Amino acid sequence: MIPTRNLRITYPSSQKIYVPGEINRLNVGMRLITLSDSLIPDENGKKERKKNNPVIVYDTTGPYSDASSSICITEGIPRIREEWYARRKDLVKLADFTVSSVTTNVKDSTTEFTCFPKQHYPFKAKQGKRITQMYYAKRRIITPEMEYVAIRENQQVEGLGLKSFITPEFVRKEIAAGRAVIPVNINHPESEPMIIGKRFLVKTNTNIGNSTLSTDVEEGIDKMVWSCKWGCDTLMDLSTGKYIHETREWIIRNCPVPLGTVPVYEALEKVDGKIEDLTWEVFRDTLIHQAEQGVDYFTIHAALLSSHIDLAMNRLTGIVSRGGAIMSTWMKIHKQENFLYTHFDEICSILSQYDAVVSIGSGLRPGSIYDANDIAQFAELKTMNTLTKIAWEHFVQVIIEGPGHVPLNKIKENTSEQNYACMGAPFHSLGPVTTDISPGYDHISAAIGSAQIAWYGVSMICAVSPKEQLNVPNKEDVREGVIASKIAAHAADLAKGQPGAQVRDNAISKARFDFRWKDLFNLSLDPERAKQYYKGKATKNPENSTMNDTNFFAMKLSMDIKNGE
Amino acid sequence: MIPTRNLRITYPSSQKIYVPGEINRLNVGMRLITLSDSLIPDENGKKERKKNNPVIVYDTTGPYSDASSSICITEGIPRIREEWYARRKDLVKLADFTVSSVTTNVKDSTTEFTCFPKQHYPFKAKQGKRITQMYYAKRRIITPEMEYVAIRENQQVEGLGLKSFITPEFVRKEIAAGRAVIPVNINHPESEPMIIGKRFLVKTNTNIGNSTLSTDVEEGIDKMVWSCKWGCDTLMDLSTGKYIHETREWIIRNCPVPLGTVPVYEALEKVDGKIEDLTWEVFRDTLIHQAEQGVDYFTIHAALLSSHIDLAMNRLTGIVSRGGAIMSTWMKIHKQENFLYTHFDEICSILSQYDAVVSIGSGLRPGSIYDANDIAQFAELKTMNTLTKIAWEHFVQVIIEGPGHVPLNKIKENTSEQNYACMGAPFHSLGPVTTDISPGYDHISAAIGSAQIAWYGVSMICAVSPKEQLNVPNKEDVREGVIASKIAAHAADLAKGQPGAQVRDNAISKARFDFRWKDLFNLSLDPERAKQYYKGKATKNPENSTMNDTNFFAMKLSMDIKNGE
Repeated sequence: MIPTRNLRITYPSSQKIYVPGEINRLNVGMRLITLSDSLIPDENGKKERKKNNPVIVYDTTGPYSDASSSICITEGIPRIREEWYARRKDLVKLADFTVSSVTTNVKDSTTEFTCFPKQHYPFKAKQGKRITQMYYAKRRIITPEMEYVAIRENQQVEGLGLKSFITPEFVRKEIAAGRAVIPVNINHPESEPMIIGKRFLVKTNTNIGNSTLSTDVEEGIDKMVWSCKWGCDTLMDLSTGKYIHETREWIIRNCPVPLGTVPVYEALEKVDGKIEDLTWEVFRDTLIHQAEQGVDYFTIHAALLSSHIDLAMNRLTGIVSRGGAIMSTWMKIHKQENFLYTHFDEICSILSQYDAVVSIGSGLRPGSIYDANDIAQFAELKTMNTLTKIAWEHFVQVIIEGPGHVPLNKIKENTSEQNYACMGAPFHSLGPVTTDISPGYDHISAAIGSAQIAWYGVSMICAVSPKEQLNVPNKEDVREGVIASKIAAHAADLAKGQPGAQVRDNAISKARFDFRWKDLFNLSLDPERAKQYYKGKATKNPENSTMNDTNFFAMKLSMDIKNGE
Repeated sequence: MIPTRNLRITYPSSQKIYVPGEINRLNVGMRLITLSDSLIPDENGKKERKKNNPVIVYDTTGPYSDASSSICITEGIPRIREEWYARRKDLVKLADFTVSSVTTNVKDSTTEFTCFPKQHYPFKAKQGKRITQMYYAKRRIITPEMEYVAIRENQQVEGLGLKSFITPEFVRKEIAAGRAVIPVNINHPESEPMIIGKRFLVKTNTNIGNSTLSTDVEEGIDKMVWSCKWGCDTLMDLSTGKYIHETREWIIRNCPVPLGTVPVYEALEKVDGKIEDLTWEVFRDTLIHQAEQGVDYFTIHAALLSSHIDLAMNRLTGIVSRGGAIMSTWMKIHKQENFLYTHFDEICSILSQYDAVVSIGSGLRPGSIYDANDIAQFAELKTMNTLTKIAWEHFVQVIIEGPGHVPLNKIKENTSEQNYACMGAPFHSLGPVTTDISPGYDHISAAIGSAQIAWYGVSMICAVSPKEQLNVPNKEDVREGVIASKIAAHAADLAKGQPGAQVRDNAISKARFDFRWKDLFNLSLDPERAKQYYKGKATKNPENSTMNDTNFFAMKLSMDIKNGE
């Protein structure tokens, strides 16, 4: 039995608030940060208190930051979306899973593995029914999910009336056009709806995964919650090895954000890692099983065709996508076309029954600056055009995986080519890192590229660990990586002029000018770090500040000038 | 007596090499990184060794990385440029300093301060002679300094013949046009010439400085050498408080890179911090004294006029430049125009006699995203146009200080406005940070902005500490800040297509594809960090890699496909 941990998330001077829906019965969790008063000198030099409005920020922590919710990992978190299904006539709850479970790679295992104790049988579309968000959007129906994300996207300042920039109808239009997706597998009702699309806030993804060395469920859940604490919007489970499916069950049942996978990883484990033994049938069953488990989006390397492989052979770093390399090897061995491509129609048909999103994997993304924007990468993009059309025929929501390693001057070409080839489908990128010489600091190299590419239109970026390519990230690495990606995402939101995005910057700048240190910490992306660094100061009196950074001395003078002192 | 520390710098598998000049007798220090062989399988699967060319990289460490040089901080490092002066007929060595020294703020001090034991009397231009690099460049004379930087800018791979992209004549033309500067005060002959200009490698600056709490000379020298180790190209001494001049003497005599100051800081200390007591005469004497000490570039806040102050009063964060705030307060008190502006001609006349560079300070740089690119900032830019012309009339080399806090979408306007207003004079920026919500991580926020602005044409960026605005950086913070700025600078060099810049990226990518881990570490910006992170791995066999990052698994397959296995 796995002991229940205290996974509660708290932020200083913050409270969890819920904004109710107007069309549907729903409550959108947000974080309200309370600020202290400014002290403004009046004409007589007497200081007058002036209230500062609280700041409301986007919250990715689900029930973990709600003191009134009970957290018990063997129960799973509340299935908040399930009650919406009651009103739907297009879903059916199955009596059993469509395919039976295969526990991976445990022949020689001596470990005892405790499975998640509750069994939730899967929902599925009723025969002949279409159930995806894209289908509803095209039928001009605003789903609860659409209203939910519309409310969520509006970062508000109480009293400023910045409420209705993004309306449910606007969300619907973007989904209908394929320019945005809401990854909400009907079998992951624990997940809070969120939207990925270039007209919305830039989202960040964290890669997690048991390595082959660890199937520690507790550690997995801990990292997942930790990642949500720092603001990550989705998780990608890149697990390989033992008990993949069983471990993921624990994660999904406790996960308030959408979760993605690369299903070929699990399929490969089922054939004991022998690429030659991979078959479409094994893959299909894995896909169905994961879809019924609640995986919200699937990276499918279907755009890498056999004719593309040779294009990558003169590269400096060849094929660096694991999924791409697996499929290339399979094609070379069997002298057949990629089965993910030849069966893509069937894949979409499966995904459509669970409203899972397809992420068309970039099997030929560049693995070095040298290989960026080469013929191999762009050849794959053309196939992505065909695949996007097929998915949309099934009303399956589509996102496109991007690079990789790209120098700053080649980033724009990436986004414009993708936007054209994939007809506006959202792009999500793995970085890109903008130089190869930064091992140990790739989170910074990636933040530079991510901010740039997100400004140009990428809708979701990926948290890159400082230990990328060197080691499995520990919790501190996850924190560093997520925060770096949040900075990049927010820098892009500001550059895009995303409505309301600058409210938090303005509030923190005002706090700085007022020497309201506590507010400065609390409004930061990482209040704990900001406070910890400040604590080390020799003096706590900002007016005696001895910092190298001389801003505060200047601001004091500047304030004196303004106040006519 | 301060004990001599071991300040030696070593890098793994690296050796110091010297490239001789062809026109002048000079030797340019560089770092040669030796690589191991690749093992390439032949048709029979037998592995064949293939030599990898060593990589030569830019080196900012001066004698500290030369095992054959003796380091003794009480002696100072070799005065490598002094021998060039012997051939010059335009310099004179003075018998004493022009102004007498004023020890700052020591009335109530109980500390014993040990002065640097050697006295070097200053060089100065002979009466009626012009001695600046710009003057020579306009006279079509290639100085040793110009040849030195031309050799230095060519990052070479032995055997690839990438030698003569940047010629001494090209350097001369850029200096003559004012588009580049070589900050080489004749009184800092310990410094190795380096060039700042948009057609050259992007440079990085580190701010150091004793706080009011510390006059620890040893700590100062230690941080200076440490900063050079990680690749910083110049230092900015922002000291305030006691023994400013005396502490700086220790630093300069041991400093292999150019050093800049904001001389009004020391001037203010001389009048006990009372802004109302500041005078042109105190400032002038400070300037002369620092110029005779060897300060290579001076930040002078001369572009902030009294008419500009009111423009900044409606800002969210007012004036955040310390120099700008001091001069604004002075103007308000005395109801006079900025004496740095009214005496700018005299300032340039002084600087021209020591070949010191003027950095026109941005007193009105924005202190928050909200204030970016506002009327106050751009008003100051217009004055900078006038000042640049005045400096150039004196053949004084000019650089322009830039922001600050700027969102990504407003960075381009900054560089194009500056480039136009200042007729191509090099721009160096303090960041910019691209969001205000990242206290504790401002090195990342600044790296995002720095890479962008350097790509658009900024010639030097500034290392920002993770503790910026929160605390004095310790050594680890300096390392983090410098490496982040080096990543940004290099990302910009790649984007600019700087000749040879990609050689190191290609070499490290090839090492990665070949699983030559040691070479990967050694080619990194921070080999120690890369190796340390890797060490933590459970397995040292890359083919059993258990990383979250699945690149290596993929590259192995990719290599197998290529090798037809």
